[in-house]
Amino acid sequence: MPALDQRPVPARTSPVDGPPIDSPPVNTVPATGATIWLTGLPSAGKSTIALAAAGRLRAAGRRVEVLDGDTVRTHLCADLGFSRADRDENVRRIGHVAHLLARNGVLVLVAVVSPYAGARAAVRAEHSSTGTPFVEVHVTTPTEVCGDRDVKGLYARQRAGELRGLTGVDDPYEAPAAPELRLPAHQQTAAASVASLHAALTGWGLA
Amino acid sequence: MPALDQRPVPARTSPVDGPPIDSPPVNTVPATGATIWLTGLPSAGKSTIALAAAGRLRAAGRRVEVLDGDTVRTHLCADLGFSRADRDENVRRIGHVAHLLARNGVLVLVAVVSPYAGARAAVRAEHSSTGTPFVEVHVTTPTEVCGDRDVKGLYARQRAGELRGLTGVDDPYEAPAAPELRLPAHQQTAAASVASLHAALTGWGLA
Repeated sequence: MPALDQRPVPARTSPVDGPPIDSPPVNTVPATGATIWLTGLPSAGKSTIALAAAGRLRAAGRRVEVLDGDTVRTHLCADLGFSRADRDENVRRIGHVAHLLARNGVLVLVAVVSPYAGARAAVRAEHSSTGTPFVEVHVTTPTEVCGDRDVKGLYARQRAGELRGLTGVDDPYEAPAAPELRLPAHQQTAAASVASLHAALTGWGLA
Repeated sequence: MPALDQRPVPARTSPVDGPPIDSPPVNTVPATGATIWLTGLPSAGKSTIALAAAGRLRAAGRRVEVLDGDTVRTHLCADLGFSRADRDENVRRIGHVAHLLARNGVLVLVAVVSPYAGARAAVRAEHSSTGTPFVEVHVTTPTEVCGDRDVKGLYARQRAGELRGLTGVDDPYEAPAAPELRLPAHQQTAAASVASLHAALTGWGLA
């Protein structure tokens, strides 16, 4: 095992049903790796926020990787489909790779639907096992808005009967009960979401 | 893309069939990430060398990860068997993860049989695409010695007819034609192999 930063993950100081926490008071050292896990429906804005936040963090000299659900599927998960088991394995693999990177000082921005709470909790637990910070960010754009955006045409295909198992429509999405941060990407610009995320990371000593 | 070290991989300065290269003269900056890819037959000594080398590098303050073929299969490649296609996909995934780590400043020691030259070349090419150093190390212990060691009992199972497709026995092993380093782990102690590897890494500016 490498020399690991043993700082605990950002504490959740609110009750489970409480409001999003923007800046839990945690003493940190700079340049710590962490996994920033953006979960939400298709077309919620996860990748847009992750890529823009990554650019800002890199410009500040941080080592950053973006693991995007769609691109990761071609590299690490080409065998996986969209059954519950395959979705969970997809999240597990991405989580494992994110953990490897984060415990080595990289800020990893993950943008993946990751619909099941149990799979996300397992990724959090893997990070906890080495004291590697893990931050869950819920991009809360609701189905209706996502369906209007429909960046990849998935909602149209589902409506046309060409696709089944679309998360939030005819497949489950288990929203995080207590994410470290919520980003209402349907109520603010992408730039505002990135600013909010960056401010939270700064508060946690991760940016 | 993160800010990447654009230094070329260690140059191969010997003819293809020439002797192992211990210290090609390359000017480097310290603390560069790299993938050190140990290939060889089962029980050749890859994992032993990788783990010991990792310990030495970590003691010197480097960020190090070991990606061992056997453990990686449980985390990233649980779906894969030992057909040629599955072995190639296994190598491709490990190579992709190693690349992600190495281009972020991590020294990645990979210990995996990786029997096919084409798959190893593809991993090298992925690293080259970002100027990330990739070093191929052939652990040259021959089949007879590996069969005597038989750390995991694979050779005995093959002889007993309980297992087929054992690399070097009844499955192909395409030895590297021009690895950056060869380690004759059957002719020297593990400590000597580690010392040889460490000296080579030092010569390349990677340790």
